[in-house]
Amino acid sequence: MLLSSDEAGHFTRVLRGRTGDQVRVFDGRGRQFAATVRDARSTTVTVELGTAVTAAAEHRIRITLVPAVLKGDKMDDVIRDAVMMGVTHIQPVVSARTEVSVATLARGDRTARWNRIAVASVKQCGRAVVPVVAPPVTFEACLATITPDDLMFVEPGDAAGLSPLADVPSPDEDALALVIGPEGGWTAAEIERGATACRLVTMKGPTLRADAMPVVALAALLARWNQL
Amino acid sequence: MLLSSDEAGHFTRVLRGRTGDQVRVFDGRGRQFAATVRDARSTTVTVELGTAVTAAAEHRIRITLVPAVLKGDKMDDVIRDAVMMGVTHIQPVVSARTEVSVATLARGDRTARWNRIAVASVKQCGRAVVPVVAPPVTFEACLATITPDDLMFVEPGDAAGLSPLADVPSPDEDALALVIGPEGGWTAAEIERGATACRLVTMKGPTLRADAMPVVALAALLARWNQL
Repeated sequence: MLLSSDEAGHFTRVLRGRTGDQVRVFDGRGRQFAATVRDARSTTVTVELGTAVTAAAEHRIRITLVPAVLKGDKMDDVIRDAVMMGVTHIQPVVSARTEVSVATLARGDRTARWNRIAVASVKQCGRAVVPVVAPPVTFEACLATITPDDLMFVEPGDAAGLSPLADVPSPDEDALALVIGPEGGWTAAEIERGATACRLVTMKGPTLRADAMPVVALAALLARWNQL
Repeated sequence: MLLSSDEAGHFTRVLRGRTGDQVRVFDGRGRQFAATVRDARSTTVTVELGTAVTAAAEHRIRITLVPAVLKGDKMDDVIRDAVMMGVTHIQPVVSARTEVSVATLARGDRTARWNRIAVASVKQCGRAVVPVVAPPVTFEACLATITPDDLMFVEPGDAAGLSPLADVPSPDEDALALVIGPEGGWTAAEIERGATACRLVTMKGPTLRADAMPVVALAALLARWNQL
C-alpha cells in the first residue's frame, strides 16, 4: 500500500528512510501495523503490511476539547498536549478576548497546521486514532453543540455557583466536552451564556497559564475517572 | 524596604517601572503585600508596604518533585510547570540516561537559572512561596532521601508489580516525593533500586513526553487527593 504523500515526504526527506526499513503504519482510526518499506522515492512510498500492533488504549470517555484560540503559537502546544492526553476531537473557539478572528484564522490555514500537529503527536504518543481538529468557530456558535453535562472552566471568583473540580461526577454518557478560555479568561457575558448551556467548573490552587489549562484539566479529570 | 537587586533590575529595566507605581511584593515564604514604589533607580528600588494580599493557597500536601534532568532547555518548562502546580521543593537528578553530568550542570550554573525560573513562575501563578530548586544529584544519592511512601513513575510494562495510579492512596504524611524519569526512561537497574526505596507507579493511556510527565502526574495526583 502507498503512504499518504505527506507521510511519504516526511519519511524520505525528514527521516531519510529507505527501501527495506521497518516502520509502523496506522490508519488513524485505531489500527496499527508493523510494515516493511518496499519502495521509497520522494513522496511515493510503498509499504507491505505485517502483523497488527497494539496501539495505546483509547479512554472509555470520548473527550472533545473546546479551547479558546491562544496568542502566537501557543495553540500548537495545546493541540499537541491534548492529543497526547487522549482527546478524540478538538473544536477551537474564538471568544471575546481571543485576539484573532475566525476569518483571519481561516486565511492563515491554521486548521491544516493544527491537524498536522495532531498527526505528529499521535505518532509520538503511540495512539492509532488521529483526533480531528475542526475549523475554529465563535463561542456563540460552539454553544449550540454543548450539552448540559459538558464542562466550562472558569477562574475561581468569576461567578457564583461554580462546581469545584472535586464535585464533578463521572459522566453518564461516554462523551464529554471541556470548554477552556483564553489568556485573560472569559467575559462576564460569556460566563453567563455558558452557565445556561453547561456546568461551570473551577480549580483550586495557583493560577494556571492559559496554555497549561487544557493538559492540567484533562489530567485531573481523567485521573478522577480512573482513566489514567 | 528595598527590593532584591534582581527584582529591582527587572522592575526598572524590563517592566520600565517608576516611582509611584503600585506593585505586589512577596517574601517567598507565604506573605504577599500591596506596595507603592517610593524610589526607583537601576537596581535600587525602595517600596512602602501596604495591606497584606491573600496569595494562592498552598496545597495541604507538600510535594517534592524529583525530575531527571532533560535535554536542552526542556527542564526550564518542567521547573515552570511544577511551580505552577504547587510543588514546594524540586530536586533534579542525573540518571543513567541523562545526557549531562552533575559536574557539567554545576559548571553551567543551571541551578541558579532554574531558581530564577521558579521565581518567575511564582509571580505568574500568584503563589507567595518560592520553591527551592536544589543542585542536581545522582539518582543513587537521591535514593538516600526517598521514603517508602514516595512515588517513582515508570512506563507500563517496565517492571512487574507496578501500582496503577488509581491504586495510589492519599498520603498519610503531608509530604511526598515524586520521582520522574528522563527521555528514554529509567534503566532496569534503576527501576530495581527504586523498587527497594519507594513505590513504583504507572499511568495508563498514550505515552507521555518526558517533559509533560511532571505536570500530568502532579495534576492527576492532586485531583485524586482533592487538592485541585
